[in-house]
Amino acid sequence: VERYARLDLEREERTGVPEIVLAEGKTVHHLLGVLEAIIAEGRTVLVSRLDGSQRTALERAREGGMPVELLAEGRLARVGTARPRPARAGPVAILAAGTSDVPLAEEARAVLEHLGIRVVTAYDVGVAGLHRLERALGPIVRAHPQVYLVFAGREGALPTVVAGLVRAPVVGVPTGFGYGRGGRGEAALTAMLQSCAPIAVVNIDGAVPAALFAGQLLAANRPARARA
Amino acid sequence: VERYARLDLEREERTGVPEIVLAEGKTVHHLLGVLEAIIAEGRTVLVSRLDGSQRTALERAREGGMPVELLAEGRLARVGTARPRPARAGPVAILAAGTSDVPLAEEARAVLEHLGIRVVTAYDVGVAGLHRLERALGPIVRAHPQVYLVFAGREGALPTVVAGLVRAPVVGVPTGFGYGRGGRGEAALTAMLQSCAPIAVVNIDGAVPAALFAGQLLAANRPARARA
Amino acid sequence: VERYARLDLEREERTGVPEIVLAEGKTVHHLLGVLEAIIAEGRTVLVSRLDGSQRTALERAREGGMPVELLAEGRLARVGTARPRPARAGPVAILAAGTSDVPLAEEARAVLEHLGIRVVTAYDVGVAGLHRLERALGPIVRAHPQVYLVFAGREGALPTVVAGLVRAPVVGVPTGFGYGRGGRGEAALTAMLQSCAPIAVVNIDGAVPAALFAGQLLAANRPARARA
Amino acid sequence: VERYARLDLEREERTGVPEIVLAEGKTVHHLLGVLEAIIAEGRTVLVSRLDGSQRTALERAREGGMPVELLAEGRLARVGTARPRPARAGPVAILAAGTSDVPLAEEARAVLEHLGIRVVTAYDVGVAGLHRLERALGPIVRAHPQVYLVFAGREGALPTVVAGLVRAPVVGVPTGFGYGRGGRGEAALTAMLQSCAPIAVVNIDGAVPAALFAGQLLAANRPARARA
Amino acid sequence: VERYARLDLEREERTGVPEIVLAEGKTVHHLLGVLEAIIAEGRTVLVSRLDGSQRTALERAREGGMPVELLAEGRLARVGTARPRPARAGPVAILAAGTSDVPLAEEARAVLEHLGIRVVTAYDVGVAGLHRLERALGPIVRAHPQVYLVFAGREGALPTVVAGLVRAPVVGVPTGFGYGRGGRGEAALTAMLQSCAPIAVVNIDGAVPAALFAGQLLAANRPARARA
Amino acid sequence: VERYARLDLEREERTGVPEIVLAEGKTVHHLLGVLEAIIAEGRTVLVSRLDGSQRTALERAREGGMPVELLAEGRLARVGTARPRPARAGPVAILAAGTSDVPLAEEARAVLEHLGIRVVTAYDVGVAGLHRLERALGPIVRAHPQVYLVFAGREGALPTVVAGLVRAPVVGVPTGFGYGRGGRGEAALTAMLQSCAPIAVVNIDGAVPAALFAGQLLAANRPARARA
Amino acid sequence: VERYARLDLEREERTGVPEIVLAEGKTVHHLLGVLEAIIAEGRTVLVSRLDGSQRTALERAREGGMPVELLAEGRLARVGTARPRPARAGPVAILAAGTSDVPLAEEARAVLEHLGIRVVTAYDVGVAGLHRLERALGPIVRAHPQVYLVFAGREGALPTVVAGLVRAPVVGVPTGFGYGRGGRGEAALTAMLQSCAPIAVVNIDGAVPAALFAGQLLAANRPARARA
Amino acid sequence: VERYARLDLEREERTGVPEIVLAEGKTVHHLLGVLEAIIAEGRTVLVSRLDGSQRTALERAREGGMPVELLAEGRLARVGTARPRPARAGPVAILAAGTSDVPLAEEARAVLEHLGIRVVTAYDVGVAGLHRLERALGPIVRAHPQVYLVFAGREGALPTVVAGLVRAPVVGVPTGFGYGRGGRGEAALTAMLQSCAPIAVVNIDGAVPAALFAGQLLAANRPARARA
Repeated sequence: VERYARLDLEREERTGVPEIVLAEGKTVHHLLGVLEAIIAEGRTVLVSRLDGSQRTALERAREGGMPVELLAEGRLARVGTARPRPARAGPVAILAAGTSDVPLAEEARAVLEHLGIRVVTAYDVGVAGLHRLERALGPIVRAHPQVYLVFAGREGALPTVVAGLVRAPVVGVPTGFGYGRGGRGEAALTAMLQSCAPIAVVNIDGAVPAALFAGQLLAANRPARARA
Repeated sequence: VERYARLDLEREERTGVPEIVLAEGKTVHHLLGVLEAIIAEGRTVLVSRLDGSQRTALERAREGGMPVELLAEGRLARVGTARPRPARAGPVAILAAGTSDVPLAEEARAVLEHLGIRVVTAYDVGVAGLHRLERALGPIVRAHPQVYLVFAGREGALPTVVAGLVRAPVVGVPTGFGYGRGGRGEAALTAMLQSCAPIAVVNIDGAVPAALFAGQLLAANRPARARA
Repeated sequence: VERYARLDLEREERTGVPEIVLAEGKTVHHLLGVLEAIIAEGRTVLVSRLDGSQRTALERAREGGMPVELLAEGRLARVGTARPRPARAGPVAILAAGTSDVPLAEEARAVLEHLGIRVVTAYDVGVAGLHRLERALGPIVRAHPQVYLVFAGREGALPTVVAGLVRAPVVGVPTGFGYGRGGRGEAALTAMLQSCAPIAVVNIDGAVPAALFAGQLLAANRPARARA
Repeated sequence: VERYARLDLEREERTGVPEIVLAEGKTVHHLLGVLEAIIAEGRTVLVSRLDGSQRTALERAREGGMPVELLAEGRLARVGTARPRPARAGPVAILAAGTSDVPLAEEARAVLEHLGIRVVTAYDVGVAGLHRLERALGPIVRAHPQVYLVFAGREGALPTVVAGLVRAPVVGVPTGFGYGRGGRGEAALTAMLQSCAPIAVVNIDGAVPAALFAGQLLAANRPARARA
Repeated sequence: VERYARLDLEREERTGVPEIVLAEGKTVHHLLGVLEAIIAEGRTVLVSRLDGSQRTALERAREGGMPVELLAEGRLARVGTARPRPARAGPVAILAAGTSDVPLAEEARAVLEHLGIRVVTAYDVGVAGLHRLERALGPIVRAHPQVYLVFAGREGALPTVVAGLVRAPVVGVPTGFGYGRGGRGEAALTAMLQSCAPIAVVNIDGAVPAALFAGQLLAANRPARARA
Repeated sequence: VERYARLDLEREERTGVPEIVLAEGKTVHHLLGVLEAIIAEGRTVLVSRLDGSQRTALERAREGGMPVELLAEGRLARVGTARPRPARAGPVAILAAGTSDVPLAEEARAVLEHLGIRVVTAYDVGVAGLHRLERALGPIVRAHPQVYLVFAGREGALPTVVAGLVRAPVVGVPTGFGYGRGGRGEAALTAMLQSCAPIAVVNIDGAVPAALFAGQLLAANRPARARA
Repeated sequence: VERYARLDLEREERTGVPEIVLAEGKTVHHLLGVLEAIIAEGRTVLVSRLDGSQRTALERAREGGMPVELLAEGRLARVGTARPRPARAGPVAILAAGTSDVPLAEEARAVLEHLGIRVVTAYDVGVAGLHRLERALGPIVRAHPQVYLVFAGREGALPTVVAGLVRAPVVGVPTGFGYGRGGRGEAALTAMLQSCAPIAVVNIDGAVPAALFAGQLLAANRPARARA
Repeated sequence: VERYARLDLEREERTGVPEIVLAEGKTVHHLLGVLEAIIAEGRTVLVSRLDGSQRTALERAREGGMPVELLAEGRLARVGTARPRPARAGPVAILAAGTSDVPLAEEARAVLEHLGIRVVTAYDVGVAGLHRLERALGPIVRAHPQVYLVFAGREGALPTVVAGLVRAPVVGVPTGFGYGRGGRGEAALTAMLQSCAPIAVVNIDGAVPAALFAGQLLAANRPARARA
């Protein structure tokens, strides 16, 4: 495995968040090699952006005894023998504008739970019906999240609207749906970058980096309401 | 003037809305020639998208006796001796997300008033404060507009949010402000094209075509509430 | 279903047009869950942009007793037990520049008929033979449409040409055909945005939003010729 | 001058059309050096795309005795002592969709006349009024042009419409006007590339290459009607 | 068939070139309907840009008796009973920069031969070996073509280089090969638009419009060398 | 002022950060009107993205008695009589890759100090000399920032490299310098979106939104090291 | 084969590097024809960018006796009877930022070894862990490479960082991985073009041109350290 | 100066080429501060991409005694007391396609001569006249350059054509001239990236990085012809 990959064992120590193995672009041969090396080190990692043949290979490896658990409807895998940490930090709020955004939102939730962070969610809270949005937002706000991850595709307006209503920072996650000009998440990403509210953004479909960013935020901070 | 321009005298008859002279790109010499020919026909027209030297030329022509009136802080001119028609149709609602969008919105208002259409407006009603939006929208909705022209720059979310709250069709008008990626109206245009609400769109800074589209709509329809 | 979707039962009341379920991007599991909840509410909805596996799932559900009817060669489905409303409003004119644009135009027609709106159509009326266009346009104009939905791909010139000839407002619908630069509807969309006639535009392949926009227009207005 | 430019004296012999000196991007010092070398060879050339300081420099050089004539309102210059050749070939038809396109169209006319080619023109013949277009096209068609150069900005539909009506090949010349998305000629260029008629295209504002292409066409062909 | 297509029987008379049926985007049902109507009129047409299922449908129709002949390795079909016209006009020169460009070049050749135009070709004459290019160009030049169609992908330099060496007009045809930035013909198209030689251009993979443009050129002109 | 602007007095209460007045796109008349209304409310605000004529107008207003203070070399203004709050929160780290990025970084610093947040900075710490970077980063890390704002133009690599070395979350701020392809901040923005480290991003030149995002983060959280 | 391809037998002599046959875009029929002609000349060539059906055709041809060897996991083929030349020149250093970049890096290695050039490699040396990078770079630097080929996808920062640490010229090779905006290598390419270090770049996935550029560099130069 | 800049004194030692100060984007105050610090270290540097006000400030500083010399018509400045090194390495060949490219080419020459590298040049050697190109290339080839820097705008074909004719590696430098689509160097850059010859590329107008890349190449290698 040293010929094509170098394990970064000290990353979590340095930065407060563990490495995630990005499956995309890796040959099945390389991916399995990396995972075997990680297991041999006694570590447990998440694997993201699995394509079909990689998922099949992991399922076959599991039958051969590799400790593999598929999460978020197979979009992620946890590889290794460790159990998820108990949720001691958080919560992080995850909002999704439409039903299509839910699988990505669940991907972020799985990463956060893997990091031992509590999550509160509200899905299908689009901007075309403001009263529904306010109704959905109520219980979320009362849970005092430290950060909001707001998923939206199409015109990507939800993070802007939410940021005008809540006290914690908002990270927009554009989702890659939609057809025609601005489709595949381009309009949502660009609209979030142009937001008239002070939000930060990750790339289209960036559920995993958004969750890790939130994880790093929680590792370095703790909520203001805890001060009293 | 026949060498570089042909007047379309029957356009209003054919389509229900009069021609607007687009100044952009015309030499001062050509612009004045066209306007003189129109005055000679006894007609009155609006001139749009005047640049600095064209505006100066019109002001000088006015001193020389040409019937010229500058509108919307000089962005438009009315050339000819006819008075604005009394407002018998409408109303059309004009909303603007921010203060920067007001000059463009006023350009649309001037065109509609030139067409004899009543206008109701609400400006600076951005999406980052929903309660302000609802407060501003109240009197507008009660005026029963036949169509909404909604101006927004930056992330361009206002037409989408409005379309979820009102009964009349919404035309989005992206405005060309904003810096960085998606700036100069690109994000707003693209977000409106991707809107999860069924809105129609005109090009960036398209205040004049939006107003003419509304004019044509009113020329061919009248409001449902008048049915009873 | 509350975990991933919130039904907006008051939308039609608020805006005059019913919600359409956008299938694109939804998992089959989520799509069926949403539809079952809607049926349980006693409502009937259209479902748009079905992909192959979603269409198969609906057909299988129909065999299992779900009230499903495929429309427009399977591009849409009507789910629920209500019958289409009788056509009491309209007409709306639908024009298509080429034969390739017909399936999308038929998608718009199905939505309008679902809304109880009468439709008149003329297809394959491209701009390369003006006499054919005029011949085709004659009977349409005489039906006094309240709005024109004009479908065109490639160079997208038809809405511009039509808008110079008719009295009602024109909404351009770019269609996603064509190869090379500007292909997949980009040239048509951009040309419509740059039109020298005052048209409004929806996104590429936006048959459904165009039809809903027309529906909202008719819900709020009625034709001028009815005044007398 | 050998340090920064090499004269291509045999180009006209090789290709049938003479070289045009492109002023754009050249320092005034380099431009004057090139022109002096050309005059020293006893040749006469056109200079295109002059910016303000280059035009001023040429005017000053003319006062100093250099044989310079400004054409097309100063967009071109003829440098050298030769007189324009008598118009023995052609005609080439030049059409312009709007008044704004006229200066560019006149630039093409000046190049063609420099080449000894007869030109027939019709300007401001946009597609929003088909009857005006047909009226304007009549005398052009009767002159039996060998090729049409059709200038259009905005949505760039004119070359497509013309190509469906005439027997000679059509070259589209997009012009760089227009604001918003697709502005500065981008929509016109792309629409012409996507034309459903078999037209060829030059770049935005490509009046000079279009005229040279027509010149080369006439140098290698002569009209079919001459056959009888 | 009148419901989705209108035949343009007078097009060839009007413009000098016959219509080509563009298969792309048409349903198999629509395509066969159009072709049957054309055959019923006693005409013979070419069909371009066939996809796999359309080609299969045509082959099956041929077995059922429809007069269908596949050309250019199945990229085109001739449908109808007429024989190709004898080649009385031309020649047109077709050059291709690489072996990958040959199938597209052959598509243009088939169209031209269908129009009764003689073709001379030279393939794989890229710009990276100038001596090979000159050797290949010799016999072409001696055939005195009336126009050159020059196919090139990648950096698209061949039309520029050829236009500096020959007397007849050059039409560049960018071909849609190549990976990375500027791939799929974008670099070739853009480079041809920026050419320092006066060439005209068609869209990426525009073999058919290029051939029809050449056909129209020959229908309206004949070669200069024939003058003597 | 109610005609073109609505003050959002409750925004800070709702979201934890005060509104900033964006000058860009506002007429001088509108800008002064808004500021006067704000002063009349007894509030103090920052004004961002002043252009030349706006800055001049503010300076003139200051001479007329308006409480105006220019910050960050005139890129910002503080308008109102309140003094900056004492720095009780933070620190926030601000890093800048090059000297050109310093004015933007200083703009963020001014906003943070206006919010009462302590700032630590290290400038000109580009990635082409890793040892210099590590030397510069040392004192910053020891100050235990709660969040890093990392400014970089050109290839935008600094936020990625920093995120691999520190424990707090990193927000990348692309700066709009650079020529050629990817210039004006486009390459930096895109590279940050593609970062292999989990960073969040704001738009090009987004110093103010980045600072407000950090402010909101600090309003809702406090540092982990304070736990012990 | 003369009908669609011309062999360039003198290319290596002229330029110092042999031709590589680019399979992409060639029909299987044409590809085999070209290779047979090359074998008939007694030459041995590499074939690059094989797609699935081409690879299958080559494997079948091998069974039929054609001398074919697949390299770099089937991305390349060597066709002909010559053995690889012994490695007399070099070394060239090949670095890859991630495991996903390894197959492309191996493609460059195969080309260089085909040219008789020695290669040293270090893979998975991304910029998010600088100490790992320095550890990996040590043995490479001590081998005194004449040029570095540095492969990176995503944000493409590795070539910039490496160029600040080594004495030989760095060629960046962007790799086509990554999702969202800037994906498929666009961000990496653009970031390398904007690099603040003086690197040169090839197109996305340009492993073969990068290797040939290095080959030409070594053919024309030899290392400075050899001077003594 | 430590507040906004850090000098990298060991860069030349590490990489073989000295740092160049990029003026673009720096305030005049910062630029002068950096240069004074460098002079105080006894070093001499080049300053690139000076804008008008920076150039004026340097000229004024020279009058105040700062050792400043303007090069390449003021595009570069040498600041410091050291004399250019004698030209002991090289030569590097610099070719420019057109007269407009000469100032950029001269910028590269000045950088190389500052590095003590001999330069041979041939300017205005475009691809539209191959015989002129061959004539110009003869003396260059006979000087046995170690690397070619080839400047071209517009369609950017020259580096491709040259790379097919010479033995040393070719670096393409796109120049930012040209109007319309692909203008300002975009077409040239993209065409060079798609070149069918194995060239490497720098960004548009990248004269300085190209020269530094060549300098690093010569620092690490010496010419093959010296072997015998």
